[in-house]
Amino acid sequence: MYELGVVHRTITRVESAVADGLAQFGSATVHEAMGRVGLLQPYMRPIYVGAQISGTAVTVLLHPGDNWMMHVVAEQIQPGDIVVAAMTAPCTDGYFGDLLATSFQARGARGLIIDAGVRDVKTLTAMHFPVWSKAISSKGTIKATLGSVNIPVVCAGMLVTPGDVIVADDDGIVCVPAARAAATWAAAAQREANETAKRELLATGVLGLDMYKMREGLAHAGLRYID
Amino acid sequence: MYELGVVHRTITRVESAVADGLAQFGSATVHEAMGRVGLLQPYMRPIYVGAQISGTAVTVLLHPGDNWMMHVVAEQIQPGDIVVAAMTAPCTDGYFGDLLATSFQARGARGLIIDAGVRDVKTLTAMHFPVWSKAISSKGTIKATLGSVNIPVVCAGMLVTPGDVIVADDDGIVCVPAARAAATWAAAAQREANETAKRELLATGVLGLDMYKMREGLAHAGLRYID
Amino acid sequence: MYELGVVHRTITRVESAVADGLAQFGSATVHEAMGRVGLLQPYMRPIYVGAQISGTAVTVLLHPGDNWMMHVVAEQIQPGDIVVAAMTAPCTDGYFGDLLATSFQARGARGLIIDAGVRDVKTLTAMHFPVWSKAISSKGTIKATLGSVNIPVVCAGMLVTPGDVIVADDDGIVCVPAARAAATWAAAAQREANETAKRELLATGVLGLDMYKMREGLAHAGLRYID
Amino acid sequence: MYELGVVHRTITRVESAVADGLAQFGSATVHEAMGRVGLLQPYMRPIYVGAQISGTAVTVLLHPGDNWMMHVVAEQIQPGDIVVAAMTAPCTDGYFGDLLATSFQARGARGLIIDAGVRDVKTLTAMHFPVWSKAISSKGTIKATLGSVNIPVVCAGMLVTPGDVIVADDDGIVCVPAARAAATWAAAAQREANETAKRELLATGVLGLDMYKMREGLAHAGLRYID
Amino acid sequence: MYELGVVHRTITRVESAVADGLAQFGSATVHEAMGRVGLLQPYMRPIYVGAQISGTAVTVLLHPGDNWMMHVVAEQIQPGDIVVAAMTAPCTDGYFGDLLATSFQARGARGLIIDAGVRDVKTLTAMHFPVWSKAISSKGTIKATLGSVNIPVVCAGMLVTPGDVIVADDDGIVCVPAARAAATWAAAAQREANETAKRELLATGVLGLDMYKMREGLAHAGLRYID
Amino acid sequence: MYELGVVHRTITRVESAVADGLAQFGSATVHEAMGRVGLLQPYMRPIYVGAQISGTAVTVLLHPGDNWMMHVVAEQIQPGDIVVAAMTAPCTDGYFGDLLATSFQARGARGLIIDAGVRDVKTLTAMHFPVWSKAISSKGTIKATLGSVNIPVVCAGMLVTPGDVIVADDDGIVCVPAARAAATWAAAAQREANETAKRELLATGVLGLDMYKMREGLAHAGLRYID
Repeated sequence: MYELGVVHRTITRVESAVADGLAQFGSATVHEAMGRVGLLQPYMRPIYVGAQISGTAVTVLLHPGDNWMMHVVAEQIQPGDIVVAAMTAPCTDGYFGDLLATSFQARGARGLIIDAGVRDVKTLTAMHFPVWSKAISSKGTIKATLGSVNIPVVCAGMLVTPGDVIVADDDGIVCVPAARAAATWAAAAQREANETAKRELLATGVLGLDMYKMREGLAHAGLRYID
Repeated sequence: MYELGVVHRTITRVESAVADGLAQFGSATVHEAMGRVGLLQPYMRPIYVGAQISGTAVTVLLHPGDNWMMHVVAEQIQPGDIVVAAMTAPCTDGYFGDLLATSFQARGARGLIIDAGVRDVKTLTAMHFPVWSKAISSKGTIKATLGSVNIPVVCAGMLVTPGDVIVADDDGIVCVPAARAAATWAAAAQREANETAKRELLATGVLGLDMYKMREGLAHAGLRYID
Repeated sequence: MYELGVVHRTITRVESAVADGLAQFGSATVHEAMGRVGLLQPYMRPIYVGAQISGTAVTVLLHPGDNWMMHVVAEQIQPGDIVVAAMTAPCTDGYFGDLLATSFQARGARGLIIDAGVRDVKTLTAMHFPVWSKAISSKGTIKATLGSVNIPVVCAGMLVTPGDVIVADDDGIVCVPAARAAATWAAAAQREANETAKRELLATGVLGLDMYKMREGLAHAGLRYID
Repeated sequence: MYELGVVHRTITRVESAVADGLAQFGSATVHEAMGRVGLLQPYMRPIYVGAQISGTAVTVLLHPGDNWMMHVVAEQIQPGDIVVAAMTAPCTDGYFGDLLATSFQARGARGLIIDAGVRDVKTLTAMHFPVWSKAISSKGTIKATLGSVNIPVVCAGMLVTPGDVIVADDDGIVCVPAARAAATWAAAAQREANETAKRELLATGVLGLDMYKMREGLAHAGLRYID
Repeated sequence: MYELGVVHRTITRVESAVADGLAQFGSATVHEAMGRVGLLQPYMRPIYVGAQISGTAVTVLLHPGDNWMMHVVAEQIQPGDIVVAAMTAPCTDGYFGDLLATSFQARGARGLIIDAGVRDVKTLTAMHFPVWSKAISSKGTIKATLGSVNIPVVCAGMLVTPGDVIVADDDGIVCVPAARAAATWAAAAQREANETAKRELLATGVLGLDMYKMREGLAHAGLRYID
Repeated sequence: MYELGVVHRTITRVESAVADGLAQFGSATVHEAMGRVGLLQPYMRPIYVGAQISGTAVTVLLHPGDNWMMHVVAEQIQPGDIVVAAMTAPCTDGYFGDLLATSFQARGARGLIIDAGVRDVKTLTAMHFPVWSKAISSKGTIKATLGSVNIPVVCAGMLVTPGDVIVADDDGIVCVPAARAAATWAAAAQREANETAKRELLATGVLGLDMYKMREGLAHAGLRYID
């Protein structure tokens, strides 16, 4: 599916009010607000806990063991972007470390999503530059083969188109397609509002069985209670 | 092996003095005290470090991608219980988040052991509600199919019968069958007592080779030293 | 490849100035300084974040589920050593806990690298005794079969010869063969010196494309920019 | 959960008419006839294709790297049995080869289900002695530690009680509890009878949508067709 | 990224001369002809060896444990199609067996690519209906939740758009986007033509080093020969 | 541990009588004859069943996604050799296909052991050129970076020194160090001789418990029989 050797300099980013605002809801709420789609595979893990970000995707396609294009994508970063790095074949090498993070951060990137490995994680943590990755590895890479920048890519099992919104936190990573970003924002806000009331009720000991009125459905499905 | 669609409301819990007391020893000591059996598979990991709990098991059997029975099990929780959630087929979806945790905590649950995924881990950590799981995932679930509550289940490779004691910490999770709980308590206490003296001796530089009198056995097995 | 049932008491350790000094560079820089070889597989993970050590390898070969030789290797530890434990077949059992750690630490060991499981991780963390392992597991082991101490071993895919230097941190673990330790030290120092200047430049927003003069090479390889 | 060091000589086997007869339906049909439970994890794979067996379970619990109890269980085999071997911790070693297979076959065993490794697979294939295992490995084992024979065990995630019926083929392995064997036989026969008619209808090009009358349910769920 | 609950009845298929003709080259040659992209993850394996097919993709998106949409996609199959089934979350259940295969085959499907499990593999083999899957499992599925048919999907890490060409054999599966199918056909034919001559030369003992004139490049890169 | 960019043209091969003769015993018997060491990890699997070979190792070290050195090693092959290919980092790409196999076979190679992927497996099978690999993948490789030929390598967790004997069959792969080859041959022959008699005895229904005189040891260990 991939065109190799191209850099798209012009992409249409979701407007920042929406792209920035989705961070507050977190990946689980946004995933639900989208109808339970859009999630990257759960083997992707943050290098440190607590980061919760959203932003617009700039994408890069890399070959195994080769991070040349990481320098190419750096130039395409605009403030508020999150870099999404996909691979042409599985690899766990450390494509990204503190030097590239310094560069990405200087360009305004909010984080990196990479379906491969990273390194210098202690320094990245100290820099507050969050990365979600498949592996952590000291293994360095070469600079020999062209990939592409800002083409649609599949990262950890999910299609990401440049300009889409990425929402990432300790629970995982969701990609919100540009066309659905505003509607997702509204649905997530609605969902969040509902949850506060539910949480308070549940904290008093009220059961979800009653709050969600599940008893009838369960009985209809044949649930039997045995004393 | 599983009967589907049933909820056993009456289970015999190990008495709380024993069920509560096993927490202090931790999973490794309890596992040894049981004769090195009872451990759930080590792919089960805590969502945050430092929690060390024990309690009585209430069990729930779930289908892939379906958390309906989580609401059913909530009603069967009594203070001091730990919910043990097993699956009819492998799944990494996020079956459990902060709303259910609020409900479980309100009912007196001490934690959750689930052979699948959880989400809202940042909030769960803030709530001090510990979970041991196979995965962390934002992926939500549906409510369509009946499983069962308080039947014997296999969770992460181990049989757990309702009322058994669960001991969980950073090292893993042990299930202590009800019939062996008191004897395990005694054996663990004995073992712990022995370890303190050993630890002090080893800290002075005395070797296990000498403390455990292993040299003869090793020589008998044919160990050769080469200078 | 392995000779079983032998303990080599005499090994040639890399001199401590070099063995100790490599810690400051970290595993990623040392790995690069070696020409991108020497790294153990990235499935090896530290039990807590932040430890960064180097030291001379003493090795031990273990059978699945049997930690007898751990007590044998303890006697061969000298201050500044790191124990490297390899397996004759894959195993995730907890070979090592706080008692052995107390003994190792009393002998002067700086840490443990083990291609299997460990336990008592909360206590090990409190003791500041770092371990890099394949798994964390409460599962204990028996003491029935001879392995060997201070023979060359393959640990997590890498050959480690007794006396080699081990460098381990949050990014992973590198083995530096004794014969290359001094040269690696020099190359790592050189590399580190270069990186500081680069980091400062990148922090100002200068691109790696320009700093490393990559644009010509990329164009030569056929990279096309599309507006 | 496990009692170690015991051999139960007396177990209650499902009557052979039922235990033998379930083979003809295969694991998928039997699994459905049970209500979609009872399946061992799908990582269990046959060492050669085409075998389809059923029989009564005799169980053995083994420690990692130790096949001593395999000789103990051999004595408990009766014609028509299938040996189910479970582990106290994960292991891929080759516990079973052509010598043990010769012994098992001489005792009347129909096959082996083992949550670990086997070897001599070429000879086992020539002997028509089917094995379903987690791994194939030349790695041999020792004989040092007691497990148990004919206790309930968890094998590949499923509880197997001695005397239960095992059904195994290229699709996987199902355990049918003794108490449900006769009912499962009836349900499987019913299911099989229905399938023949369905197969003939589908082969003519009739759609499942129509044969199962799904169109209304799909429309009700909101399915939209777009030309 | 996914729209749920829709079935696109009209898709543009690559013309059959090209779609059919690509089978002869096999997945490896087609993958090279595309510039080494387009390959599904190698964990996808055929249920029997020897099948080598190509055809036009009709796609279906499924939820974990739910094969309802399999019946919906069956109606959209035209002769020469290959069904590509993607999942919203990882699952190994057996979504597809001999009944659905009978239906698919009756509609003219050449095979199935599914990022989940299948069952009835013995019958599928006898029917010569090839399937490439992530798992083989007797575990059945329910029919409760809507997915979609003929939307672009990510299957085993690769984007597949309805109407694209799928090439599958023992080496794996390649997706050739419709827009590149004709050019890929030409490049593959060229490549195949070149390989015959090379194969004959290599069979005589001529080295690739000489045939491809690699010696200079290797020497330039610094390769040293040591006697 | 690896020196990069070198080709050792002169290696000392185990004499062919021994290297060839070990094939007849198979990997399991040879592994036992070595004292249960020397086995490569069991994730290494043959691309077709039934091959059983032995021969002298020529080694090659490869980088992820780069098979340049495969052409370099081809020149070093002598009749009776088996090529052992190791990686500097994990990779599943298809490094080897029918063209290289034609070349290797023309040079007299008996097979390939590769800790990565292969392709063209249908043709390799037809050529009777056996390969043991970690993966099967159509993904091709580039030719950009130097590795080495005929240096000691770690392949699938085992150290292989050029000239060692490799024994491979359906059960796995064993490396017999040159210095131990003759003794291993003798021990394997002895073991094989013993097994024939044992097999005949076991086939009559005699139990291993009696043949190996295990009953006393089991009773001493505490085994209890319960009727």
